[in-house]
Amino acid sequence: MALRYRATIEYDGTDFLGYQLQARGRTVQGELERAIECVTGSQVRVMGAGRTDAGVHASGQVIAFDVSWRHDLNDLFRALNAVLAEDVAVKSLEVAEPDFHPRFDAIWRQYRYTVVCTRVRRPLERRYAHQERGVLSLDAMQAACRYLIGSHDFGAFGKPPQGTNAVRFVKHAEWLKIAEDILLFEITANAFLYRMVRNIVGTMLRVGRGELPRNQIQELMNTGDRRAAGPAAPAKGLCLTRIDYAKDKIWRQEGVATS
Amino acid sequence: MALRYRATIEYDGTDFLGYQLQARGRTVQGELERAIECVTGSQVRVMGAGRTDAGVHASGQVIAFDVSWRHDLNDLFRALNAVLAEDVAVKSLEVAEPDFHPRFDAIWRQYRYTVVCTRVRRPLERRYAHQERGVLSLDAMQAACRYLIGSHDFGAFGKPPQGTNAVRFVKHAEWLKIAEDILLFEITANAFLYRMVRNIVGTMLRVGRGELPRNQIQELMNTGDRRAAGPAAPAKGLCLTRIDYAKDKIWRQEGVATS
Repeated sequence: MALRYRATIEYDGTDFLGYQLQARGRTVQGELERAIECVTGSQVRVMGAGRTDAGVHASGQVIAFDVSWRHDLNDLFRALNAVLAEDVAVKSLEVAEPDFHPRFDAIWRQYRYTVVCTRVRRPLERRYAHQERGVLSLDAMQAACRYLIGSHDFGAFGKPPQGTNAVRFVKHAEWLKIAEDILLFEITANAFLYRMVRNIVGTMLRVGRGELPRNQIQELMNTGDRRAAGPAAPAKGLCLTRIDYAKDKIWRQEGVATS
Repeated sequence: MALRYRATIEYDGTDFLGYQLQARGRTVQGELERAIECVTGSQVRVMGAGRTDAGVHASGQVIAFDVSWRHDLNDLFRALNAVLAEDVAVKSLEVAEPDFHPRFDAIWRQYRYTVVCTRVRRPLERRYAHQERGVLSLDAMQAACRYLIGSHDFGAFGKPPQGTNAVRFVKHAEWLKIAEDILLFEITANAFLYRMVRNIVGTMLRVGRGELPRNQIQELMNTGDRRAAGPAAPAKGLCLTRIDYAKDKIWRQEGVATS
């Protein structure tokens, strides 16, 4: 009998055309479906919580799929990691409720954006961070965060699916300095518009450089004018770090393999 | 007139067969010589401070080369970075004394080895750290460091060039826990034997796993028995972080371009 499995996934997005399956090109979903078929013999459709863009990474993507597996849960966990390419891994695997859906049941999604402030190219930081050559005002960027918190129309930072509105609830948004030259932007919301985090970060960077006043973020949210927002920050700095679910939707405790 | 230039270099060693030029295959030295020829038109030989192995990274490699350049030092700095591949960069460039040699004049060399402790593969950490699946005793590894400090025969951890001895002076050796799951080993010495850091780390990891007693490091140094040392730790965890020179050997202050 097929059960619904829920897994937390980490991937390096550099060599993927994004999470979602496409007619051509390497995708995370395609790689996961290939691995599941290889291990179980079943062609399955993998559901994902967030459809990350080409080049975007994840340390906490959540997926689900239905499959028959007669052996131990830990064996499935190990077998999937053995056949997955080196840039994707299953971090934990559980049996979920049969109606669990990683996207529709998600209540919070968290992203992190990493910026390295450096005047010269840094080869060792090139894959997982945006490199900013000039000086950024962390104060101005931190101050701009408060305009994001709460329920707002974020139409200036992304396009909603047709026939829906752009209102999203941002629970937390913060810039952190974790080393002399490394800044992190963390943002948690009930949901995000397409490219919303990268568009917000791109605008914030313009605020940090002094190219826009810090209240420009609020101004943009009032007008909803996407043309006045900064360009999207590069994909490689972005990482999907966490998805939260209501407790009763998570999993049955009958089997858990974790990191 | 040709001047001698000194540069600090950063590179991601993943896609190189090592620092030193080889008959075939991509090397850091070859990439640097290609870039210098491309920018200046001169075929030069680049001298390097440390001949890092295939897969080993550097954030503080030092090189020198002789070239005629009629323009501003900053223009040379920018032009080299513009033509170098994305996995190598010049971090700083200066005019050196005509007899400056990055290897023979070096008085201290510092390496760092990164270990991520994780039960499952971590795609986002796979390029720049060794992943250790089991539990490590940081205490035991830290305690073992004291046997390394000072002037000792390190023949158990590497082979000296023919006709020379294996005595090296280790000024500093320490394991640091920089995050819940990340350990760093930092070591500074006047010079290192071939694969010495990776052989020391490989043995230390065996101590950390409880496979060897912590005084095994001392025992190995007493006996010089290389067969009793642990296997070399993987190259990808290693990074050449810094080379120190006597003050008077560094550079003339006539021109400095830095990060």
